[in-house]
Amino acid sequence: MSLPEQSPRARQDTRLDTWAGRYAARTHGTTASAVRSLFEVANRPEVVSLAGGMPNIADLPLDVIADNLAAMIGKEGPRAMQYGSGQGEPALREAITEVMRLEGIHAHRDDVTVTVGSQQGLDLITRIFCDPGDVVLAEAPSYVGALGTFRSYQTDVVHVAMDEHGLQPEALREALVGLQVAGRRVKFLYTIPNFQNPAGVTQPLERREEILEVAREHGLMVVEDNPYGLLSFSGEPIPAMRSLDADNVLYLGSFSKTFSPGMRVGWVLAPHAVREKLVLAQESATLCPPTFSQFAVTTYLTTCDWQGQVVSFRDMYRIRRDAMLEGLAEFMPAGTTWTRPDGGFFVWLTLPEGLDSQAMLPRAITSRVAYVPGSAFFADGFGARHVRVSYCYPPPDRIREGCRRLGEVLHRELDLHHTFGLDARDATTTPPLTRGPRANQS
Amino acid sequence: MSLPEQSPRARQDTRLDTWAGRYAARTHGTTASAVRSLFEVANRPEVVSLAGGMPNIADLPLDVIADNLAAMIGKEGPRAMQYGSGQGEPALREAITEVMRLEGIHAHRDDVTVTVGSQQGLDLITRIFCDPGDVVLAEAPSYVGALGTFRSYQTDVVHVAMDEHGLQPEALREALVGLQVAGRRVKFLYTIPNFQNPAGVTQPLERREEILEVAREHGLMVVEDNPYGLLSFSGEPIPAMRSLDADNVLYLGSFSKTFSPGMRVGWVLAPHAVREKLVLAQESATLCPPTFSQFAVTTYLTTCDWQGQVVSFRDMYRIRRDAMLEGLAEFMPAGTTWTRPDGGFFVWLTLPEGLDSQAMLPRAITSRVAYVPGSAFFADGFGARHVRVSYCYPPPDRIREGCRRLGEVLHRELDLHHTFGLDARDATTTPPLTRGPRANQS
Repeated sequence: MSLPEQSPRARQDTRLDTWAGRYAARTHGTTASAVRSLFEVANRPEVVSLAGGMPNIADLPLDVIADNLAAMIGKEGPRAMQYGSGQGEPALREAITEVMRLEGIHAHRDDVTVTVGSQQGLDLITRIFCDPGDVVLAEAPSYVGALGTFRSYQTDVVHVAMDEHGLQPEALREALVGLQVAGRRVKFLYTIPNFQNPAGVTQPLERREEILEVAREHGLMVVEDNPYGLLSFSGEPIPAMRSLDADNVLYLGSFSKTFSPGMRVGWVLAPHAVREKLVLAQESATLCPPTFSQFAVTTYLTTCDWQGQVVSFRDMYRIRRDAMLEGLAEFMPAGTTWTRPDGGFFVWLTLPEGLDSQAMLPRAITSRVAYVPGSAFFADGFGARHVRVSYCYPPPDRIREGCRRLGEVLHRELDLHHTFGLDARDATTTPPLTRGPRANQS
Repeated sequence: MSLPEQSPRARQDTRLDTWAGRYAARTHGTTASAVRSLFEVANRPEVVSLAGGMPNIADLPLDVIADNLAAMIGKEGPRAMQYGSGQGEPALREAITEVMRLEGIHAHRDDVTVTVGSQQGLDLITRIFCDPGDVVLAEAPSYVGALGTFRSYQTDVVHVAMDEHGLQPEALREALVGLQVAGRRVKFLYTIPNFQNPAGVTQPLERREEILEVAREHGLMVVEDNPYGLLSFSGEPIPAMRSLDADNVLYLGSFSKTFSPGMRVGWVLAPHAVREKLVLAQESATLCPPTFSQFAVTTYLTTCDWQGQVVSFRDMYRIRRDAMLEGLAEFMPAGTTWTRPDGGFFVWLTLPEGLDSQAMLPRAITSRVAYVPGSAFFADGFGARHVRVSYCYPPPDRIREGCRRLGEVLHRELDLHHTFGLDARDATTTPPLTRGPRANQS
């Protein structure tokens, strides 16, 4: 099996780009992400992809959804298919306040702005707050899509250490003090408190309170990204950071993991003055978020048992999480550690010393297993000893098979490593210390 | 009847904005557009709104659309509701190449990028090409939403004069020479060749060729925005600029006027290297454009007689255009001139000397007629003697009534003007010369 190559046509056309000298500075150095190239490979049926973050939506009640949407079109079609408000449809914003109440947030629909997925929420927040050279704080590691957006606005991302309870408040305080001394403008902290992407760890309540306390001390805005919060495998959800501090937290939510990513409906809950700027930015970016999708999501929320569906999603993902933890325990070589997520989609691996997940990836794909190398989740080149594996999309037996293949690849890498030692490249590119949570193998 | 005011809560919250000192430079000076405030007023049933640009989609075959979408969900739901390609769905891009063929464009689907309406196409093009201080050339007057996007990227818009055949090639050449002498970086020309928004004029074929010739001479990229091209009231469409020059034209298309704006599906056709940058920008902005909308549009295009529907849209809008031209001829005071659009949605009025359309607007709304003041369509404060009126949304009898009310307002303004003369404010704010096409009253 061979890797995908850029087509001759694509290469030629890039060389011949008439406008090569004309692009904005913000585009310099933007290239296709590792995740994007992987999606192409992951589509091949022979590969077990532990790479993607696609939710498994095959169990949605499609017949019921189809009937209810058809009825909605008959009744409200001319409004659902027309231009709408730049802020989003009032009925949907009302429903969103009810969704947020499940995680302890009490908010008014006037403070909600609908976005094209929460990715666009991130884009608009960065757009209204960040000038080139501003600093954004993010967990180490952090969501690859957020890092790409921060980079596209020419900000500098400074990573803050995590442990098995997520972002460390003391590390946050140290980073803020250091940046203040250096005279840097810090615009916000970006954090995923629940089942973090990629690390799979969750901030307990006390940890959230400590982080918010540090943020208030330093006048720091917190951007809380919570796509997975309702997909918890045990007990009640932990209160959102926004429920603990309404003034200093911008909250990002999404229907991509609880209903359908193809609708591209997410939202930002923000203090009133920030919300006004977000709506102006939304109008400039799209005039209005997709009205038809918004009516479709509202219809689903009001005509289907969406909370019952979330419970069945939880059960399905918990079984897959268990399959992955069992597969890792059975097949990983000694010296490999990983996190034990209590919800969401992802497990974060720390490989034995000397291995490089990026260099190893082509050999893994040849062995028909795909993952995302850890370096994708750092803005600063770290992460070579880490791997993100996801259990959201493949069924349990494929997850187990993926773990078996990954184990084989790692064993072979270690054999090579022990036989030939570190080669020159590995010695320079593998950082001496790992970063991010390293929960024990058990 | 009184005008809408900002609520006390909104005013207070804005004053108390905790983050007031933190916003990016690009947000400075962005405020709600005149068009946006007008939409609120226009929703009141007693007002005849000649302000908005909403298409009249009431005649779409909703029952058929509902059935066909329900069938699509049953068959392709898991793909339609999943994440998709950042470039857009291949089947839709293929269909888009067929739509463009109607205006003489031969293109490959690989060079099409789907966007959240063509507004997002504009946003992404500006994002990848424009640094702060770069110059964008645009017609005088030009589309208010484009001007807002150009401003949000901190570009300087330089307007180029039009006549009844649209943008003047000689004026374009002069602008380019002047900007070159001044050492300015010009990134592209933004133009709407068909039934221009707001002026309602169309570039004949020879004019398009002349403009493209000037552009090639000066290494200028042309961004051709064509939302109304298929809504022509007479004869065959004029070949798109993109059909005359595939290397130097980025083409923006949309389904908002031929099908449904609520889908938010537009596209950019661009040379390969530019397309690669657009897709990266799209992924950073939204991950992918709405998959569900794309499947819905594809379903409509492949299961309904969409071209027959466009023909019936044309007939409906032609009748409304005629109602407006008759109403203007009957009710406008002497000295008022206007354009005679051959398609699209808009007529551009030039008022008698001394009148100020922005100052007059509150009095017009009190008289239960709304329009967009000409100054909204200029980046440089001009346009006070102009008005955009649209005939797309109200039925013919309301259009006539709107013209009658507008005529009354203008007659009253002229009476005041003749009685009291120019007051000090009018003398300073009304430019001595009008700008934009002034086709004769007839």
